[in-house]
Amino acid sequence: MVEIKPPFLGVAYYPEDWDSSEIDKDVEKMLSIGINVARIGEFAWRKMEPEDGKFDFSWLHDVVDRLKNAGIGVVMGTPTATPPIWLTRKYPDMPVEYKNGRRMQHSGRRHACSNHPGYLKYCARIVEKLAQEFGNDEAIIGWQIDNEIYLPENEGCFCKNCEKRYHEHLKNKFGTVEEMNERLNLNIFSQVYDSFDEVPLPRDTWVNPQLRQEFLTSVGQAQIDFVAMQAKILKKYTTAPIGTDQMPFNGMNYRKLHEPLDVVQFNHYNTPDNLWECCLWFDYLRTMKERPFWNTETSTCFTGSAGTYGSIKPDGFCYANSWLPLALGGEATMYWLWRTHWAGHELTHGSVLDSSGRPMYSTEEVKAVAKDFAKCADFINGTRVKTGIALHYSSHCWNMFETQSVVGDFRYEDNLKKYFYKPIINAGLRPDVIDEAADLQKYKVLFSPFMITLDQGDLRKRIAEWVKNGGIWVTGPMTDIRTNDGTRFTDRLHGMLEDLTPAVFKYWFPDKEKRITSAWNDGEEFGGNVYYEVFEPNSAADIVNVKGGHKEVIGSAVLQCYAVGKGFVFCLGTAPDEKDMDRLLSLVCKKANIPLGKTKGDPIIVSPRKGEKTSGVILVEVCGRGGEYSNDAKFKDIISGKTFDGNITLEPYEVKVLEKIGG
Amino acid sequence: MVEIKPPFLGVAYYPEDWDSSEIDKDVEKMLSIGINVARIGEFAWRKMEPEDGKFDFSWLHDVVDRLKNAGIGVVMGTPTATPPIWLTRKYPDMPVEYKNGRRMQHSGRRHACSNHPGYLKYCARIVEKLAQEFGNDEAIIGWQIDNEIYLPENEGCFCKNCEKRYHEHLKNKFGTVEEMNERLNLNIFSQVYDSFDEVPLPRDTWVNPQLRQEFLTSVGQAQIDFVAMQAKILKKYTTAPIGTDQMPFNGMNYRKLHEPLDVVQFNHYNTPDNLWECCLWFDYLRTMKERPFWNTETSTCFTGSAGTYGSIKPDGFCYANSWLPLALGGEATMYWLWRTHWAGHELTHGSVLDSSGRPMYSTEEVKAVAKDFAKCADFINGTRVKTGIALHYSSHCWNMFETQSVVGDFRYEDNLKKYFYKPIINAGLRPDVIDEAADLQKYKVLFSPFMITLDQGDLRKRIAEWVKNGGIWVTGPMTDIRTNDGTRFTDRLHGMLEDLTPAVFKYWFPDKEKRITSAWNDGEEFGGNVYYEVFEPNSAADIVNVKGGHKEVIGSAVLQCYAVGKGFVFCLGTAPDEKDMDRLLSLVCKKANIPLGKTKGDPIIVSPRKGEKTSGVILVEVCGRGGEYSNDAKFKDIISGKTFDGNITLEPYEVKVLEKIGG
Amino acid sequence: MVEIKPPFLGVAYYPEDWDSSEIDKDVEKMLSIGINVARIGEFAWRKMEPEDGKFDFSWLHDVVDRLKNAGIGVVMGTPTATPPIWLTRKYPDMPVEYKNGRRMQHSGRRHACSNHPGYLKYCARIVEKLAQEFGNDEAIIGWQIDNEIYLPENEGCFCKNCEKRYHEHLKNKFGTVEEMNERLNLNIFSQVYDSFDEVPLPRDTWVNPQLRQEFLTSVGQAQIDFVAMQAKILKKYTTAPIGTDQMPFNGMNYRKLHEPLDVVQFNHYNTPDNLWECCLWFDYLRTMKERPFWNTETSTCFTGSAGTYGSIKPDGFCYANSWLPLALGGEATMYWLWRTHWAGHELTHGSVLDSSGRPMYSTEEVKAVAKDFAKCADFINGTRVKTGIALHYSSHCWNMFETQSVVGDFRYEDNLKKYFYKPIINAGLRPDVIDEAADLQKYKVLFSPFMITLDQGDLRKRIAEWVKNGGIWVTGPMTDIRTNDGTRFTDRLHGMLEDLTPAVFKYWFPDKEKRITSAWNDGEEFGGNVYYEVFEPNSAADIVNVKGGHKEVIGSAVLQCYAVGKGFVFCLGTAPDEKDMDRLLSLVCKKANIPLGKTKGDPIIVSPRKGEKTSGVILVEVCGRGGEYSNDAKFKDIISGKTFDGNITLEPYEVKVLEKIGG
Repeated sequence: MVEIKPPFLGVAYYPEDWDSSEIDKDVEKMLSIGINVARIGEFAWRKMEPEDGKFDFSWLHDVVDRLKNAGIGVVMGTPTATPPIWLTRKYPDMPVEYKNGRRMQHSGRRHACSNHPGYLKYCARIVEKLAQEFGNDEAIIGWQIDNEIYLPENEGCFCKNCEKRYHEHLKNKFGTVEEMNERLNLNIFSQVYDSFDEVPLPRDTWVNPQLRQEFLTSVGQAQIDFVAMQAKILKKYTTAPIGTDQMPFNGMNYRKLHEPLDVVQFNHYNTPDNLWECCLWFDYLRTMKERPFWNTETSTCFTGSAGTYGSIKPDGFCYANSWLPLALGGEATMYWLWRTHWAGHELTHGSVLDSSGRPMYSTEEVKAVAKDFAKCADFINGTRVKTGIALHYSSHCWNMFETQSVVGDFRYEDNLKKYFYKPIINAGLRPDVIDEAADLQKYKVLFSPFMITLDQGDLRKRIAEWVKNGGIWVTGPMTDIRTNDGTRFTDRLHGMLEDLTPAVFKYWFPDKEKRITSAWNDGEEFGGNVYYEVFEPNSAADIVNVKGGHKEVIGSAVLQCYAVGKGFVFCLGTAPDEKDMDRLLSLVCKKANIPLGKTKGDPIIVSPRKGEKTSGVILVEVCGRGGEYSNDAKFKDIISGKTFDGNITLEPYEVKVLEKIGG
Repeated sequence: MVEIKPPFLGVAYYPEDWDSSEIDKDVEKMLSIGINVARIGEFAWRKMEPEDGKFDFSWLHDVVDRLKNAGIGVVMGTPTATPPIWLTRKYPDMPVEYKNGRRMQHSGRRHACSNHPGYLKYCARIVEKLAQEFGNDEAIIGWQIDNEIYLPENEGCFCKNCEKRYHEHLKNKFGTVEEMNERLNLNIFSQVYDSFDEVPLPRDTWVNPQLRQEFLTSVGQAQIDFVAMQAKILKKYTTAPIGTDQMPFNGMNYRKLHEPLDVVQFNHYNTPDNLWECCLWFDYLRTMKERPFWNTETSTCFTGSAGTYGSIKPDGFCYANSWLPLALGGEATMYWLWRTHWAGHELTHGSVLDSSGRPMYSTEEVKAVAKDFAKCADFINGTRVKTGIALHYSSHCWNMFETQSVVGDFRYEDNLKKYFYKPIINAGLRPDVIDEAADLQKYKVLFSPFMITLDQGDLRKRIAEWVKNGGIWVTGPMTDIRTNDGTRFTDRLHGMLEDLTPAVFKYWFPDKEKRITSAWNDGEEFGGNVYYEVFEPNSAADIVNVKGGHKEVIGSAVLQCYAVGKGFVFCLGTAPDEKDMDRLLSLVCKKANIPLGKTKGDPIIVSPRKGEKTSGVILVEVCGRGGEYSNDAKFKDIISGKTFDGNITLEPYEVKVLEKIGG
Repeated sequence: MVEIKPPFLGVAYYPEDWDSSEIDKDVEKMLSIGINVARIGEFAWRKMEPEDGKFDFSWLHDVVDRLKNAGIGVVMGTPTATPPIWLTRKYPDMPVEYKNGRRMQHSGRRHACSNHPGYLKYCARIVEKLAQEFGNDEAIIGWQIDNEIYLPENEGCFCKNCEKRYHEHLKNKFGTVEEMNERLNLNIFSQVYDSFDEVPLPRDTWVNPQLRQEFLTSVGQAQIDFVAMQAKILKKYTTAPIGTDQMPFNGMNYRKLHEPLDVVQFNHYNTPDNLWECCLWFDYLRTMKERPFWNTETSTCFTGSAGTYGSIKPDGFCYANSWLPLALGGEATMYWLWRTHWAGHELTHGSVLDSSGRPMYSTEEVKAVAKDFAKCADFINGTRVKTGIALHYSSHCWNMFETQSVVGDFRYEDNLKKYFYKPIINAGLRPDVIDEAADLQKYKVLFSPFMITLDQGDLRKRIAEWVKNGGIWVTGPMTDIRTNDGTRFTDRLHGMLEDLTPAVFKYWFPDKEKRITSAWNDGEEFGGNVYYEVFEPNSAADIVNVKGGHKEVIGSAVLQCYAVGKGFVFCLGTAPDEKDMDRLLSLVCKKANIPLGKTKGDPIIVSPRKGEKTSGVILVEVCGRGGEYSNDAKFKDIISGKTFDGNITLEPYEVKVLEKIGG
């Protein structure tokens, strides 16, 4: 393998764009800028296999060799996202079928249905050939399967193969059609089916929501299987880590997708307005694998895809953006793309070099990133992110909210970020964002808002045991109000809470207009949002109670705390205003003996790091307005070489890699 | 029949949702809350006929018997809105065809085309079977045909059967294709057809507007025939009143629809923002039948269908909402639904009981409604709404505005409510909202705004006679500017006005920007909206004239009054500002010797009641901000038992049922 | 020919609407109002050819004769926009196919595909018949081919014939499929095609942008050929000028379209909000042909088509609107329409007479127009618009921006008008708006903003020569950043600028948020918009430099000026704020020795006129707020007869036709 160590600073490179002479120039410029990894190959199927069964990898070997000779590592992509026209010609039913019956067209990406047997056969062959060619190549530091796999139009493919698979999925899940009819109560609207084959694909708005959810699960699983099939082939020929680069989209089960993979790869294109938001994803990706994740795509300066166009960014944005994944547990930042395409799509997408070969306005920042990554390499590689708090984020719940929103226009991730994640990180805390399958043992505190069902494997049992053993669980709102199927309970309002605690659910209701007003025990106002569950008042447990609104609701509890075994359960009945979430965090952290971080900013990213030999904290200013961080320990900033003690000021988009002195 | 008398307080109940043991509990809870009617059956075809020709009503008899034994009446719905999958399988061409050629899917409601011969045959059979089973059942206090029938996507079905019917409709209307070509001047754009069969269904935006109107009429008539077919069958087996529950949608001819029916059934889901708006519909429904109408569906606390979600409402909203239909001439309020579904659609729709069996926040209000309905039963049953004013509202005009708006974005009902209905009820008046066929004899005053054509049967003649006999007619704007076909006149601007009065139409024009300013005779400003018709000035008749704007228009009259026989015609050329409509109302009511009500509120609903033995007035506060009502007579509020005299204050959402003392 | 001379005041007239007796009345009213031209025939195919091959022109001769006898000229339209139903019946594949696969319906206009062989054959026949009938008729002062030809849904027809033509177009352009693959770098996304026949029609969003552009070119050319086919036939039978009336839509190549035609015909429906905007089009139309253009359609008072509805306009709007085309180089104003249709579409479209035969509110203004056109006829006919400045506006660039916008939501024409055209006319200048093929010799100054490619014929060479010979060229932003194919350069940022001048392109970037701030040499602030190209600073050339924003950009030049031969090149890197464009105009005009006009208004239209015997200036107030114009010469206003000297005040919508005294 090429002698490069993380952290990786990479670029997407499309040698199929350029003449041979340009490639030499490009490699030279990569070196001078400090790029040490190139991602290549992902859309080049046609060039690898110009005709059915006729392969040509010589050009690709040539490029890989040139990179290798320059000491640049290669992430090799499988080219399955863009099957050649000869394959579309062979299988007219290969392209994805839209909801309206039309098929996708050749000339974009991912227009083939991942579930088409012929396509799968050809994918397997090109992946195997590619793996045979490059499986042992020293240049290859990793593999990427396909590109940005998600459901066409967020809904899936409606072709015959996907229909058949859906029906098989239903059969696997329910066994008999009678069981399906009964469990989903398809008596409603006389929906009852006589066979699985009759269940329609969900084209109409009024298709059964629980069945729509099963369809999402089915088409999601098809993508997961598609990736697994490729991973299995690659593993025969390579020991380099394998991944698949995903966008911030949690409908497909991240955990299942990554089971056969080695490294989590992730793309984002966040902007000054929402840079902090991708941190939720980094905090989530980190929990998927022991191996640090890779940020496989982000923009140097602006985006320029069809329909979405960016603008010039402030000084330092590129720098801070490049550092975020490393601060939060990754080991690679890679830009899309090295050099802007000169034809086709995205001709005004920012890059490291313009299509003309000249630098972009942000290229100097990229150089600084390269320099500082190198300086901090030992600290990054020698430490891991340290956290004691977890926040639930579930693919299954994502799909359930997609198919049957509890209240109008509710977007799961947006609300999770706004009402929970942001206050948590603003408090200087570093949470792990975990899915339903994650182990809870290492956490003192777990937040489970909007977990519309906890009926996922043994999750309810695991939570209960963890609480009894001393965990502090903040549950609600909208948590465990459905079965795994997405149906409601006929004998209870919350799947497990009344069994675990003395809490008694009284009413639930949306409240978009803020008609309900509440107060903390000491009389301070408490603000709720979106939706309420209120509990029978219980003076021993009540922390927040309703003060105004509909008279039947007044007096009910909105927040209660119950001791359960060695732990505690906080029953939260609404999405709190930020100031109230802050107060709840103080309460919870005090009980958990977790110190709140001390920061000013909106937000400052604080990432505590601990390794065998050293420890410290990485700070990233992501709002562009500057901020502060306080810590009584002594630190040395590896980037600037300065030492700090007490109050630390951050300039807009500044990054500090603080190693504890004597730590 | 079960020994229950109106007023009815009912609920939609889906026994197909629940285990037998839950049903007993539900019935018991209905009794304790005060529910005396259950609407059942409407979507249960599959359970009634699990296989083609194999019927099972035992479960339904069981439920009806349990309700009957508890003294709860039953409204039985025919289940035709949800044909079972075996019928869809039998007739692949049965589902509604969308404009774009795709067919609706099994799993929602009303996916079958009401015009499909096979579907109709099966509907007839299930309805007949159901009628045979329950036609004489004492529990049944009424029948409901299908559910919320309106045109798919507000446009109708585009299937072959509907196309054929449309062509037959054209043939019936025009006789020969030459007549159609001529009457609709299809010379324009060389549209002329050689046969009816060639006339395309209106898929394109630029399809002929008059033909589009005929299509709406044709598909509307298909629904009307569908209902009539069922009514005819039911009448063979039952004497209980038959209806079909309709949403606030006037495109299908309400009068024709109800001709074969006994009771008008109506569903609405209005909210605090627009509660007053459903009063227009109640004032309309009342005029359709002698028998008081039923409000068959409304929400206890919030809605929760796909795409529309409500919120918790203020105290008393449910109470006032439940009273409105009774105040305005109905005899039943029924909630959708008794107990929230636990699977399928609408899992967060408010109800009386949650799916868990627990009450909702509004359940106590429902109990209060039950109690007060009982208290006031004799007064409600012994009196009828008394009114002397009418406001035109025509299905034919609705369709004409749908197919060929006179000015951009003009919505008939919205403008009728905003510019006419609301000022009328704010003035404390209680209008009958009548259609084109309604008899005019009992009214002193008739408002006919936006009646785009009066060319409907003998309407023009009837209006003229009624005016000559003493009626006071306020006509315009946009009134009678089209023929019944929807075409314009080639020799006049208004169909009848220049024949009936000396008024001379001068110009018409839209005026979205309020470029025209006007004034009353005494110089006070007059504000017009949307559209103008202006008349040649006539000092003997002018009340409002144009003062500013385009110089050709200045001086023209916007409001004139002409004595015609014993009556008067007010020619109104625009939609007035609210203050100006108030002034016009004073003028008109003074001439008609109708006292204006005295209220403060926005609005207070005032419903004068008169019976053989007693009289009084029902007040409902619907804006949630409180209000006042003045009346010199002495009243006793049947609900509170208090007596009043002069000024009466209403709290938010308060209801007063005031019986005249000595009255 | 009828003895009428320009200026023409015309109306669209549909004799097929009216009984014979009405036609006599209409002709009489036309005369009394001052109408001297009627446009007829355009949609009357069915009446001309009621059955396949059976022609009837007698009714049309009758109408033409009546008009002729009254001294009214006729513009005869070919009726090809509305083929009769018997033709649709004959060719079921004749109607345009939408993107989604559905076909357009009979009953609107232009529902036939201009590329369908059968349709073309029938079009040729009806045009030939019509030409044979009326080619020598003295009444005919001109011909109009079809009506408002543009691409269905702005995207074109997706039928088999259009697909075939598209593939032929690609073959003609690229020769071999290999050449296409290479020139468009279809390696990207493995798009490479094996034959032209496989290239899909651009239905998906992600279809290749350069290929989408070729499709637009192909379907545009089909329309151009359709017009040329008709023109060729007409020319066999007539010497009257032939045109085709176009809407303000520049995607189809205006120049190519008009090559076989004699007179440019143009329709617009601008309103008080945007009346000035149609002047860009008049300034453009004027440059197409020696013969003055015709404004074939505009509204007298308001529009009333499906979806777009107008309102009453201020006094004088109709008058000023009617004068604009004459002021700016046309010789005809024609209203759509004479008398509102009484059936079909557009029943509330303003007109000269209402469908009832009564005048509209604006009819008196039309009479004034007729009177004043007559007064000024000699001056109008004897002078031409005089200008020395040109502004580029290219059909090819329009399509390129349509298919691959450089920055989000950028609309070419809107930005051209806002940032360049409006400041130019506000400065009292009268530019020619020219396309890429226009000769540059007569201009001193040329603005070429947003000319995304200059790679159009010998344009680059012609510009360079013209500059070297003394031209002053203002280029950018977004100019010449693409090849003719729409691809980017791999070795440069601007196609020609660095060769022509010492300017060095440094960076380009969008800037929607105005993060970049700049200043003129003297420190005054300079505001840029939308997008930047910045240049290496060069103290000898810099006029505006970046002062704030990203540090890599600070100091770069945003505006530079280089002397090149006898001329100058201004390199402009952004769309300037209006005040900065004013300053740039001063700079440029000073260098060109062109006096800035002196006007106040927003804007006042100033049209300098020069003829062999006389000269002067026509002023039109188009903003409705009044304005001023200064000129030291002495003038006589031909309309009012008053003389002016120095400062001239204009009332809202006033027109002055100022003839130089002694001039």
